Order: sequence, then structure tokens, then C-alpha cells
Amino acid sequence: MVELAYVPRNEDGIATALGVLTQRLGDRVEKGAAIREQHAHTTTWLRNQAPDAVIFPRSTEEVQEIVRICATHRTPVIPFGTGTSLEGHVNAPAGGISLDFSQMDAILQVHAEDMDVVIQPGVTRKALNTHLRDTGLFFPIDPGADASLGGMAATNASGTCAVRYGTMKDNILALKAVLPSGEVIQTAARARKTSAGYDLTRLIVGSEGTLGLITELTLKLQGIPEAMSAATCSFPSVEAACDAVIATFQYGLPVARIELLDALQVKACNAYSKLNLPETPLLLLEFHGTEGAVAEQAALFGEIAGDHGGTGFTFTTREEDRTQLWQARHDAYWASLQLRPGAKGISTDVCVPISQLAHCVAGTQARLAELGMVAPIVGHVGDGNFHTLLLVDMDNPAEIARADEFVGWLNDFAISLDGTCTGEHGIGQGKAKYLERELGPGAMAMMAAIKRGVDPDNIFNPGKMAL
Amino acid sequence: MVELAYVPRNEDGIATALGVLTQRLGDRVEKGAAIREQHAHTTTWLRNQAPDAVIFPRSTEEVQEIVRICATHRTPVIPFGTGTSLEGHVNAPAGGISLDFSQMDAILQVHAEDMDVVIQPGVTRKALNTHLRDTGLFFPIDPGADASLGGMAATNASGTCAVRYGTMKDNILALKAVLPSGEVIQTAARARKTSAGYDLTRLIVGSEGTLGLITELTLKLQGIPEAMSAATCSFPSVEAACDAVIATFQYGLPVARIELLDALQVKACNAYSKLNLPETPLLLLEFHGTEGAVAEQAALFGEIAGDHGGTGFTFTTREEDRTQLWQARHDAYWASLQLRPGAKGISTDVCVPISQLAHCVAGTQARLAELGMVAPIVGHVGDGNFHTLLLVDMDNPAEIARADEFVGWLNDFAISLDGTCTGEHGIGQGKAKYLERELGPGAMAMMAAIKRGVDPDNIFNPGKMAL
Repeated sequence: MVELAYVPRNEDGIATALGVLTQRLGDRVEKGAAIREQHAHTTTWLRNQAPDAVIFPRSTEEVQEIVRICATHRTPVIPFGTGTSLEGHVNAPAGGISLDFSQMDAILQVHAEDMDVVIQPGVTRKALNTHLRDTGLFFPIDPGADASLGGMAATNASGTCAVRYGTMKDNILALKAVLPSGEVIQTAARARKTSAGYDLTRLIVGSEGTLGLITELTLKLQGIPEAMSAATCSFPSVEAACDAVIATFQYGLPVARIELLDALQVKACNAYSKLNLPETPLLLLEFHGTEGAVAEQAALFGEIAGDHGGTGFTFTTREEDRTQLWQARHDAYWASLQLRPGAKGISTDVCVPISQLAHCVAGTQARLAELGMVAPIVGHVGDGNFHTLLLVDMDNPAEIARADEFVGWLNDFAISLDGTCTGEHGIGQGKAKYLERELGPGAMAMMAAIKRGVDPDNIFNPGKMAL
Repeated sequence: MVELAYVPRNEDGIATALGVLTQRLGDRVEKGAAIREQHAHTTTWLRNQAPDAVIFPRSTEEVQEIVRICATHRTPVIPFGTGTSLEGHVNAPAGGISLDFSQMDAILQVHAEDMDVVIQPGVTRKALNTHLRDTGLFFPIDPGADASLGGMAATNASGTCAVRYGTMKDNILALKAVLPSGEVIQTAARARKTSAGYDLTRLIVGSEGTLGLITELTLKLQGIPEAMSAATCSFPSVEAACDAVIATFQYGLPVARIELLDALQVKACNAYSKLNLPETPLLLLEFHGTEGAVAEQAALFGEIAGDHGGTGFTFTTREEDRTQLWQARHDAYWASLQLRPGAKGISTDVCVPISQLAHCVAGTQARLAELGMVAPIVGHVGDGNFHTLLLVDMDNPAEIARADEFVGWLNDFAISLDGTCTGEHGIGQGKAKYLERELGPGAMAMMAAIKRGVDPDNIFNPGKMAL
């Protein structure tokens, strides 16, 4: 475990709030140890910090009522989606109430002509796409886990499709949210474009529950492409693969996904997913469009890849082959764990300008080799974002310390290349110490001023984002 | 003229600040009546409210120094780009200093591999694209006027290309800004994606100078398309044209521009630009892509248009024909003024969900006819955004009152259709009274809390955005 900052706890306030909430909601204020622990499950090496109780709200009005009670008694409120965040976002370092939104999972309105949908925050991305199947529309953000869309909004999630469709920030038209004051706001109209006032939508997206609790989302949808194809190509080096990626974008090829797997990751995937790929750096792509466009794009990419030393370019439109390849990519985490059974996987998340990507990945590999660490690399290389999965023996404090030191080194390295310590996982508790190094004291002061203005008693997810 | 809200003036503070600034900058603190009036030129029916002085800063450090002096003496600071904003954004209702950024017009870094550029705020969009010409890259936002990019960021400008390339919000990676405290912040790294803290970039974009003065912008660039083509198609009604637009998006056709001109606007353009288009509702389109893709997209659109009653579909890849058509669109404002020589043009800016667009445009035309007003309509219909240009005799108070009443009616109508009173012009002074109707008291309170947190003495562009 790595150490977490101390956040003071308001014992009396929490006890009073719990009493009032129990009076109001009875057994629905769940205080059992198991459910409390489960709602502080951090999935990484951060210690669990359980809330004092868990409530599953059923409506915006109920969230509003709970927030008002908690605000009166200065009791923390921590929103919970599916618990798949990676930086301690759902921990309760100062105690308080975890609000689990899984029962607010209604799809409220589908506007097919406007290509948008209004949903509650507990809807998961897979459930949404299943519901939309017959409309010819889909929601394109895919962070891997079947996360709730409220949680994905709160952390500005993205994933493999961001290179084509953007991140959560680019795909949310409006939010309904409950503020620390108990007020309910609608951040924007349902129009595609607006210049009406501060962009509260995008301020709340990525704010990790520190400014508002999302109770409704209006999401942009995309038309399901007529055709999709997958392609793979091997490269002699990470540099060659990255150069091919840069050339691809300069050419203006609208790839839907473009993922880098380093040699170690390919080896892990071969073993786990029964594939037979050359164990060198690999690019795995997906193209969306008409039958003709998809074939044309794949062929063009094949040429570009060849110009940069790519070999073994293969391309498939067969649904089962495409699914097998992308399933292997989605299983990369599980495949990696098999490289060192018993170890825990700790994921990094730096993102750098694409011109710096090869340098950053190669430097990372060299540093890992120096430290003798086993850590395969996968990257959303179209965005300059990559993850190393550090395989760490959690019973070995020296190894944990070394991994923590490596994470710090990598974040500083990315920052020195005009990059960020987090492309998509967010800050939470785990990355709080890197945020100021990245943005400087002025930006930190502005964030603190906003937080103080909106949540003067710091009851919404305290102890996160260095706030 | 329509009435403007009263904002109190801090006489003593302003006098002291002017003294200190003059001591520091000498003649560069310009106090002549002509230059002060020119910097409060609102281009519409809002009264000019001149600042006490104008300064042309030359660096971020100089802006910082000026802000510190103004903050000490609680003197307003109003940023100025090219003065093409439409809602009184550059007026100085409480006096103070206008900062004209036209001398901060350097293009600092072009990163071709990363497809981004770092510039100062005084660079205009045409100057930027001229500079970039040889790189094969361009910046796609085109609001019509050759505005400064700092001003375009401050108002979240967009225009005809937004349907394909998004608004300013979607095309800015990071900003450098001076805060009311005098601190300089960098809002984000240069990476394509980030989840590091609150999205200060998008909070400052569209905040109309009320939170930070932008002194550097990092912009995303696009590859210049291999081919471009233009097309026009006439429709029997606005409804038929809008249905064709909806079908175009449902099909997933990536049009680069898609503009609606109503019959009156077509008539005006025919007369002004020597065109010969049928005087019925018209869609004017542009396609970007490879030669093949552009031809395929145009042909597909032709089919869709035919299915919705479109006639006279024409399509051209000839540079001069394309330029002539789009020049006519860009000249629509001047063409409209010729419909009523001597009248002033007042532009509205509502934006509604696209399913509501035909209803909103037809309702608007009916209302204009009822009121006996002359007002051609052009629309960025892919976004659901349209402008009516009210031709108003500014010497006739009854007519001004009627126009003002119409603007209120239209904004309320759009809001009732889940739309916004401003798709791209912003709030400034002119739309302040509509913002709360659109977003409600909770969102207004959140904006006020943010403003208070960041600018407690309200010195940055006071009296704008209902703040």
C-alpha cells in the first residue's frame, strides 16, 4: 500500500447526519462492514477507506434530500458508480455517505432524430448500447470496464475509441446535477451548440464528484457504421510504430482505434488469447465507415505502415476475426497478470504530444529494465496516451516502494515532455501529488477557488484532486 | 438603442489606477475620446460604453503587471480582440481599462507532427491560416469575421464549419491566462487528452473575459483536405430542407458545412452576388476529403435531397465556383442590408435540437410576417443554429421596441424547444436577461459562485453574462 494524505473527520456531524438519514430512510442507510468495504474498493494499491454508510438513491429529489441533510451536518458525500476507477476516487478518507447510483439506471428519452439520449447515471455503457441496438445508433466511449456512465462522466473517461470519437467531455451535451447547496441544476439545453454562460457541463465532467452529483446525462450518439474492419501490423521498434501513427494522422486517415502493444504485451496476449502474433511492437487498428471507405482506409494504412518498416500487415472485415483481435486487446490486463501469477497489476496513465510518444515509451522501457520490473505496455497511441501495467508483489514493501518511485519518475518524465500524468484515469487520491507539478500553483489556486465557491464546507468527495 | 443594466463605477480607484499605469507606461495609456469610443464599438443596437483608457499590451508579463495595478485599485479590465463581438462584450459599463491584444500577434510554435500551434491572442484566423499554408495544416473555425483567436476563444465562436470540426471549445488544447489575482496559469499540458483536474481550459473558453485574460492559446490543427466540393439544392419548404439535413446526419455523411438560406436570404444574395438561384429555401454544402470521397458524399447527399423534395441539385469541385458560392454566403450580411438601405442589421442566434429546427424556423418566419418585419434567415443547420437578421430603422423607437420584443419572443421560443438563446454569439450584455430563463437560478448561482471565487472584486469585464 502507498500512503494517503490525512483528511480530518467530523465525528459529531457524521453521527448526527446518520441519525437523521436513518430516521428518514430506515434500513436503506446500509451500515454493514461488507457493503461499506465494497464501496471503498480501490482496485489498486491504495488502502480502502470505507464510508460510514451506503445509500442507493432512487431519484434526483432523493439525492437532493440526502445532500441537504449531509450539508447541514458537514458530512462527506461520495458518489459511486461501478467502482472501477483506479485512483481511489470512491474512497472516504473523512468518512461520510457513499451514494451508489446503480438503482438510478433508467434510459429516460431516446431522441433518434437528434442523435442523443437522456439517461440516469447508473446506466452502464454496455446496457446503453444494448438498449440502442435497434435504433442504428451507439455511444462510442469504451474505457474497457463496463463502467456506469455517471462514473465515466465524473472521471472524463475515454479509451480505445477516443482517437475518433473523443472523450466523455466531447460526448455530453448536458448534465443534471445536485450541488453541495442542495440545489439541482441543468447545465445546458439539449441543443448541439451553446455559448450561454460558463461551461458547467465540462466543469462537472472530470471533477470526480467534488463539485456536483450527476443525476442525469444527455449524451451525443453516433450512427453505427455500415462496415468495420480490423488490422494488425508488426514493427521492428516502438519508434517505427509511432512514426507510422504520426504519418497516419498527417494523411488524415480517420482511424476509429489505433492501439500499440509492446513486445512483452504481445507475448502475454499470445499466451492468454491463443494468438500467434510476432512478438515485436504491434499496432492494432479498427476502421469505421462504408464498405468502400473501410477497405480504402485499411489499404492506405498498409502502405503507410510499409513505409515505416511495418511487416505482416493483415486486415479483416470478418466479424469473428475482428472480435477475436479486439477481445484479445480488452483481455490484455488479464493476459498481463499471467506473466507473473500472484502479482497485482498497477496501471500508469501518462499522455504526451504524439511527437514525444516514441521517446517516452522507449525511455519507459529502458527505465523498467534498469529497475528489473515486469510491466507490459499498451497505448491509445493516436492520443499519445499509454499504460504500463506494473506487476507488483504486494507482500514485498521494497518492491512497492520501487514501483511507487517508478510511477513518480514516469509522471515527471511525461510532464517534462509537455504531457500529463493522466490521460483518462483521473487524479483521485493516487495522483494528487503530481497535479501541482503538472499545472503549477496558479492553476491549483484557481481550482481551489472554484471548489471553495461551489462547496465551501468541502463535503463533496473531500480529499480528492488535491482539493 | 436598448437599455443596459447599471453597473456602479469606482471613480477614485479608476483615477488612482490610471495615475499608476501612466507613471509606468506613459503615452501607451491612451485616453483619447476616439480610441476609447472605438474600443466600445458594439456593432449592434447596444449603446457604446467607453473605457477610461486603452492599453495595447506586448507580453504576458505586461498584462500581469497591468492586472495587478488594476486589482489593487479595483479598476475594471476589459479584453479587446478585433471588436467584432455582437452582444456588447467589449463595453465598459463601469469604466476601466480596455486591453487591446492586437500587438500580441505572434505565432510562437508550430508543431506539425502534433498538428497543433501555440499563438498569442491577437493573431486573427486568416493570419494564422496564411502562416500555416505551407504546412498542409489549417485551423478550421470560421465565424465569418476575421476575428482574433483570443476573442474567438473568449466567446466560444464557431460558424459554418462547426458541424464537422466543432467549436472553439473542441479545438483548444490549452490556454495561458492571467487571473484577477495577477497569477499566470497554464490550463493544461499540450497532450491531446487529459483528465488532470478541473477543465480550466473550457471554463475560460466562453467566459467572455470574466475569469481570465487569455495571453496564449494552444490550438488543434487539421490537415488541409485533398479535395473540397460545394453543392446547392433548393427545397419547396424549410421543413423539407430540415428533413434532408436530419437524414444526412442519420446516414453519417460527414459534411464539412451545411447552411440553410431562406427564400428572402436567397433573393438578397441573388441581387448582391449576381447569382441566379431559385428563390426558395436553399441548402448550401461543402464536402472535404479525398477526390473519391468528396464525389461519393455529394452524390449521396443528392439522393437524400431528392428523397425530400430537393430540386436543382448542383455540385462543383471547381475552385472558382466553390469560392463564388461561399463568398455569397459570407456576404449574406451585406446582401441583407441592401433589402432595406439605411437600416441596421441586428442578428439573433438561437440554437435548438435539430428535430425542432423546422418548427422553430417556420414559427419565426410566421412571427416576423405578423410583425411586418424584414429579416432574412441563414442557419448553420447541422448544429440547429440559425440567425435572423432584423433590419431595423434605428431612428424609429417603436420599431426598435418591436424588434426587441421579437428577440425576446424568439429566445423564449427556442428555450421552450430545449434550445439556447445563443449558439455562438455569447451572452455579453445583450443576452444577459435571457440566461436565467434558459438555465434557471441554480446554474446562475453556480456561475456566480465560480466568478466570486476567482474574481472576488469583480474587476474582469464586469456587467457581462449577468454576473
